[in-house]
Amino acid sequence: MLNELIIDGLIKRALEEDMPFGDITTDSLIDEESISRAEFIAKEEGIVAGIDIAGRVFKILDSRVIFTKVVNDGEEANKGDIIAQIEGKTRALLKGERIALNILQRLSGIASKTKEICCVVKDLPVSIADTRKTIPGMRILEKYAVKVGGGSNHRYSLSDGVLIKDNHIAAAGSIKRAIERAKIAVPHTVKIEVETESLKQVEEALDAKADIIMLDNMNIEMMKQAVALINNKAIVEASGNVSIDNIRQVALTGVNIISIGALTHSVKAMDISMKIR
Amino acid sequence: MLNELIIDGLIKRALEEDMPFGDITTDSLIDEESISRAEFIAKEEGIVAGIDIAGRVFKILDSRVIFTKVVNDGEEANKGDIIAQIEGKTRALLKGERIALNILQRLSGIASKTKEICCVVKDLPVSIADTRKTIPGMRILEKYAVKVGGGSNHRYSLSDGVLIKDNHIAAAGSIKRAIERAKIAVPHTVKIEVETESLKQVEEALDAKADIIMLDNMNIEMMKQAVALINNKAIVEASGNVSIDNIRQVALTGVNIISIGALTHSVKAMDISMKIR
Amino acid sequence: MLNELIIDGLIKRALEEDMPFGDITTDSLIDEESISRAEFIAKEEGIVAGIDIAGRVFKILDSRVIFTKVVNDGEEANKGDIIAQIEGKTRALLKGERIALNILQRLSGIASKTKEICCVVKDLPVSIADTRKTIPGMRILEKYAVKVGGGSNHRYSLSDGVLIKDNHIAAAGSIKRAIERAKIAVPHTVKIEVETESLKQVEEALDAKADIIMLDNMNIEMMKQAVALINNKAIVEASGNVSIDNIRQVALTGVNIISIGALTHSVKAMDISMKIR
Amino acid sequence: MLNELIIDGLIKRALEEDMPFGDITTDSLIDEESISRAEFIAKEEGIVAGIDIAGRVFKILDSRVIFTKVVNDGEEANKGDIIAQIEGKTRALLKGERIALNILQRLSGIASKTKEICCVVKDLPVSIADTRKTIPGMRILEKYAVKVGGGSNHRYSLSDGVLIKDNHIAAAGSIKRAIERAKIAVPHTVKIEVETESLKQVEEALDAKADIIMLDNMNIEMMKQAVALINNKAIVEASGNVSIDNIRQVALTGVNIISIGALTHSVKAMDISMKIR
Amino acid sequence: MLNELIIDGLIKRALEEDMPFGDITTDSLIDEESISRAEFIAKEEGIVAGIDIAGRVFKILDSRVIFTKVVNDGEEANKGDIIAQIEGKTRALLKGERIALNILQRLSGIASKTKEICCVVKDLPVSIADTRKTIPGMRILEKYAVKVGGGSNHRYSLSDGVLIKDNHIAAAGSIKRAIERAKIAVPHTVKIEVETESLKQVEEALDAKADIIMLDNMNIEMMKQAVALINNKAIVEASGNVSIDNIRQVALTGVNIISIGALTHSVKAMDISMKIR
Amino acid sequence: MLNELIIDGLIKRALEEDMPFGDITTDSLIDEESISRAEFIAKEEGIVAGIDIAGRVFKILDSRVIFTKVVNDGEEANKGDIIAQIEGKTRALLKGERIALNILQRLSGIASKTKEICCVVKDLPVSIADTRKTIPGMRILEKYAVKVGGGSNHRYSLSDGVLIKDNHIAAAGSIKRAIERAKIAVPHTVKIEVETESLKQVEEALDAKADIIMLDNMNIEMMKQAVALINNKAIVEASGNVSIDNIRQVALTGVNIISIGALTHSVKAMDISMKIR
Repeated sequence: MLNELIIDGLIKRALEEDMPFGDITTDSLIDEESISRAEFIAKEEGIVAGIDIAGRVFKILDSRVIFTKVVNDGEEANKGDIIAQIEGKTRALLKGERIALNILQRLSGIASKTKEICCVVKDLPVSIADTRKTIPGMRILEKYAVKVGGGSNHRYSLSDGVLIKDNHIAAAGSIKRAIERAKIAVPHTVKIEVETESLKQVEEALDAKADIIMLDNMNIEMMKQAVALINNKAIVEASGNVSIDNIRQVALTGVNIISIGALTHSVKAMDISMKIR
Repeated sequence: MLNELIIDGLIKRALEEDMPFGDITTDSLIDEESISRAEFIAKEEGIVAGIDIAGRVFKILDSRVIFTKVVNDGEEANKGDIIAQIEGKTRALLKGERIALNILQRLSGIASKTKEICCVVKDLPVSIADTRKTIPGMRILEKYAVKVGGGSNHRYSLSDGVLIKDNHIAAAGSIKRAIERAKIAVPHTVKIEVETESLKQVEEALDAKADIIMLDNMNIEMMKQAVALINNKAIVEASGNVSIDNIRQVALTGVNIISIGALTHSVKAMDISMKIR
Repeated sequence: MLNELIIDGLIKRALEEDMPFGDITTDSLIDEESISRAEFIAKEEGIVAGIDIAGRVFKILDSRVIFTKVVNDGEEANKGDIIAQIEGKTRALLKGERIALNILQRLSGIASKTKEICCVVKDLPVSIADTRKTIPGMRILEKYAVKVGGGSNHRYSLSDGVLIKDNHIAAAGSIKRAIERAKIAVPHTVKIEVETESLKQVEEALDAKADIIMLDNMNIEMMKQAVALINNKAIVEASGNVSIDNIRQVALTGVNIISIGALTHSVKAMDISMKIR
Repeated sequence: MLNELIIDGLIKRALEEDMPFGDITTDSLIDEESISRAEFIAKEEGIVAGIDIAGRVFKILDSRVIFTKVVNDGEEANKGDIIAQIEGKTRALLKGERIALNILQRLSGIASKTKEICCVVKDLPVSIADTRKTIPGMRILEKYAVKVGGGSNHRYSLSDGVLIKDNHIAAAGSIKRAIERAKIAVPHTVKIEVETESLKQVEEALDAKADIIMLDNMNIEMMKQAVALINNKAIVEASGNVSIDNIRQVALTGVNIISIGALTHSVKAMDISMKIR
Repeated sequence: MLNELIIDGLIKRALEEDMPFGDITTDSLIDEESISRAEFIAKEEGIVAGIDIAGRVFKILDSRVIFTKVVNDGEEANKGDIIAQIEGKTRALLKGERIALNILQRLSGIASKTKEICCVVKDLPVSIADTRKTIPGMRILEKYAVKVGGGSNHRYSLSDGVLIKDNHIAAAGSIKRAIERAKIAVPHTVKIEVETESLKQVEEALDAKADIIMLDNMNIEMMKQAVALINNKAIVEASGNVSIDNIRQVALTGVNIISIGALTHSVKAMDISMKIR
Repeated sequence: MLNELIIDGLIKRALEEDMPFGDITTDSLIDEESISRAEFIAKEEGIVAGIDIAGRVFKILDSRVIFTKVVNDGEEANKGDIIAQIEGKTRALLKGERIALNILQRLSGIASKTKEICCVVKDLPVSIADTRKTIPGMRILEKYAVKVGGGSNHRYSLSDGVLIKDNHIAAAGSIKRAIERAKIAVPHTVKIEVETESLKQVEEALDAKADIIMLDNMNIEMMKQAVALINNKAIVEASGNVSIDNIRQVALTGVNIISIGALTHSVKAMDISMKIR
């Protein structure tokens, strides 16, 4: 999913942002030929995500750096674990450290949070999906991290999924009209999803043959009724105010997908540091 | 600090990421001439940051959109408050909504967190500073949000501040040698900061006339001794494992600056939504 | 679908390609203050597509140019018809002429070809879709032109539709396994399409609940059998070697979609010229 | 003419356009380590152009792909011929296939069409030249393909050739004045070409020592008279409404150059497909 | 020659280079609403070039800035003269000052130097041309400044002029063969220039019908003989070691063009400063 | 300081500027497989700077070129000295020659001029610093060259140093207020510099604890008094109208830094040429 074509541009922009005129400390004090070995070490437990991207940061600074990952994406690291070993020009190691960690820590934070939430419902037939609530420029990486953590991806962008909301319905006149018009206008490869706030809307969406019905901010009881109503004739997605505290209850209503913005918009970075030997 | 020259590129990349082939739902269902009014509403209490950037998102989509901010950057919004009013083409409103909110929610989240921490020590002569632990591509925005929340900025990048760490010291031979070499090599407009882990290192840094001495991961007692030792002959910065729980203690040691990575690396987005009338 | 955010970059690159060091003829001979009026004239019959983009070319060269479209996208122009009127700095008109026409002529060529093909089957319940066989950098414009001509869009890119081919099936072990794995891995908003070359494969795809079944290069008879077999349980797409000569026959088999690469890969530009008055 | 510096940017933009969020089918179903062999096969007769660019597409996706061309640019391929062999990661092969073919098929289409037209006049002392009627972003590649097909290039852009038209003449007052002014203003390395529509204009251009005289949309008889009048004192270029049906007649008038927009603006892609073994 | 399409990218890159994180002095001290008036003042005599570009710098920072040029490009300014007046946000004036002046001072320096040299030979039928010895990224601006100063432009790039040197001749076998091959390969709109170092080579170039013959580093006597030999059958260009001290002598040999690298590679900036009232 | 991340973008833009459509001479005449050896030769005495960048130009054109530097950055080359040897594809050598030399000659010109000036005061405790008067896009390279020549760097940009001028002082009310406000607003890693034009202002700046006091355009006598007044309580920088003729006098006043715009804004390129063997 993340080949160099996709990540190199992001990494280069990050490095340029972090040293528009070089690393004045390192350039002054570290001999150009100096070689070092370093390790990435987990300072807390978590699921690693983005280890190859972290490695690529150093490669872009100096293609001769040797980056050896010890923990793979999706694997758990415990406090004190070595996640990767890096060997190469000391200058490259010091210049790349912060950018590599900024990416690795955030993606691992996302994966860890996703995993934690998924675990609560792992015995239930439900998927935990992300949203478009990502940091500008980071979407593909953040959605990758969600998958690493065991979650699934919602649409990537406004171009690859139809989500009909209030305003769209009002403009079209009815849910039925909105779905009909969308079906004609968009690629036949894309499913039609409708956001509903009442059982009446659920019914309308069902009648209009929506592929996916989103239950937006409904309470548990209403969700149960909606699931019964839909009765497997459409995919059911729950959305809104779901957290680790109530997710099991939501899942038990029988919805197929639960989407959670906080997987990407409110993330605690996993604590990882680089130690030069 | 944030003029259009600086933010327009970021906004455009974000919009392109969110609709490489347009907004297929809106383009199908909303009439091109349709006009709407919408509001940004706070769903929880917090300090607003980035309101002008949010407005600029819509302007870039359609220069005729009228965006009226009700709450200014740095002001508090309470649950239910209208933060801004937007009027213009419905298509522009729907296409810009998510990107505008993604930026506004994150920056407001940073400002709110910063404010909360600053409040704990507001009666003490100490500044709360950010770090370089920012999301790739977002640094200038995130550092702006820290200032909006009452914090101060540490160096922007590796190019505009000298921070001498273990490896630099080892390479130079001693703290004294490292500072001497750096002073010669870098612009005379930049201060020299040294990271210390012991009182002995503090003493060396002081002897070598470091401008700033960072106390890295020291306990409260050691910090007090360091502050006494330094005795106002250098700026003293505390760093490492500072949270809202222990920051007052740290501040009471007499350090001048406390830098906290979590201001930007672990942020809860402020809950804000757009409601079309 | 095509706002300035999306097209301005393309137009600027086109203008830079056409005058890396300015228009040396015009810069030498035309007075900077000179004003002219010009017209775009159809030199043959066709469906216009891209008229707003053509107008935007001149606006980018000089924002004071007045571009008045006489024929809208999707409307037919006959030989001799005025398609648009342009008034402004003569230099801007002469510098923008070729780029504006290059885009307008190609998009109108695509729309005209699409319309011509659609007309042959307009009484039948079938859609004519494009493919990914577009010119690098032009995809969104070319797919827009297909819609202007009455066609529909297939997936925009490899990111927004699943199309399982031979190699994917072989790698997964069977059509069934491939569909199962894809369903888990991709966003739930995306349909699963399978390419089939025999009735046996059609049957397997049907059993595995493919959303769309592509009949690849089948003859008319086999297509009929496949349509009967599928019996509305999946969308049926015909692909391969369809031209204006045999499309009606293909449509009469009952397939829902016919995709045609030549709509975009082999196009005769519509003949349009600019005449300065 | 086409080194990596020039083509890599175009290829990367094309790949990004085709997979803003990766190839969701291939990423889901094809094992990262899987290796395949594939062939490019001609499905019809034609002149190959762009084979190195096609190869570069795969190299950019994975530098370890081995791309072996069997047919060189400018050589003819017959139906069924293997044009190139590709070996490497299956993922890279599947992701690069469409972009590589989109470029190769278009350039080969241009080369084949050029060759076909050149053949009609190959015994005559005339060159067949292209125009600026190219697809935005593709000019250098399309002009390269024209040369591969045996044609010659007209000016690359508005910056590297002077072509004085009606409006330029009107602005300058006369052909003579226009040529004089242009000679002073443009680099001395560039020839001055004048577009003429009558024998009177031809005479004026000749008197004013134009380097090249374009006979614009003249009939065969008038072209003959113009050629006689010019009598080798300037290069003579015929332009306008030339096709394979009348090109021999045009060439027999004695003109030196015949420029044809359709070489690039109306092209049938050469049918080439990739077959994975 | 220099429209916004061409210069805006350069200006934006320059501003970003000069304030990757804003203007920390001005952002801290100048009120956002503060308005100022300023003037550009010549601190020495010279020919102004680039005044519109300087104005554009401020417009890009704030479109409401009013920039009024008092001296036009090509006009002379004397010490103390006001060159332009600027009125607008103080922040925009202070942030744009240095970049506007850096461009204006350099281009005016080039124009002034060119003018000075041209004056020495203004009564002689010779043109003073620039070369490709320009600063990366600045070529179109620097060549514009040469024209403003009364000089003429040599080819803009390797793509728009043929200059056959030693190595090309050696590769082709002879001057004759080189010219023949080049004539076939390059656009017919481009002249063929040959670099010669001896009268024998001049003779060969003449026989082979070179359009332009460059006399490379010849002494005055040899140049005279070359001019006599060529006898108006080709354009004659003198190049190498020409300075203001010997240019009149060179011009008196009868050459048509004298090209001088120092016009752009060794330039004294014109002293201009901005004074805020 | 100058790794590939930083210089590759600049080199690519320079090459694209110099051959938007290839090198038409070389592409026509030089066989693709031809190999050559060349040398960079000093045509005058000077300090070399930028030799690695020059080498990188060729590598970017063809990664197999072997570039061997004979003279390192900072070393002196005398007339006739070989500076570097280059071996590889003749096409790459000819295409890269001018861009490599344009960069190398300018940077060496800057280094040579800096060295010359530094030599005049080499026995005195003063540093010679550059300014922001650099060519757009070239700042990091030009500041690098100043260091190679023995000079030191002033701030890189408006983001990494505070320089309080007239207007800032007026806006803040007084030097004291300006410094106070700046200290609060900018990162604590940055020093505060104040520009002064009188001894009174020097005194105020001193009282307000400015880190650096710039003596702007003061005469020698006033500078001496200022230095006495400051008495090592701040760094003293002299600026304005300093040239090689008066620099020793200025240095003898006891200032710590002398900044000179002409180091970068008015530079004579070092004469270096490439000779193919």
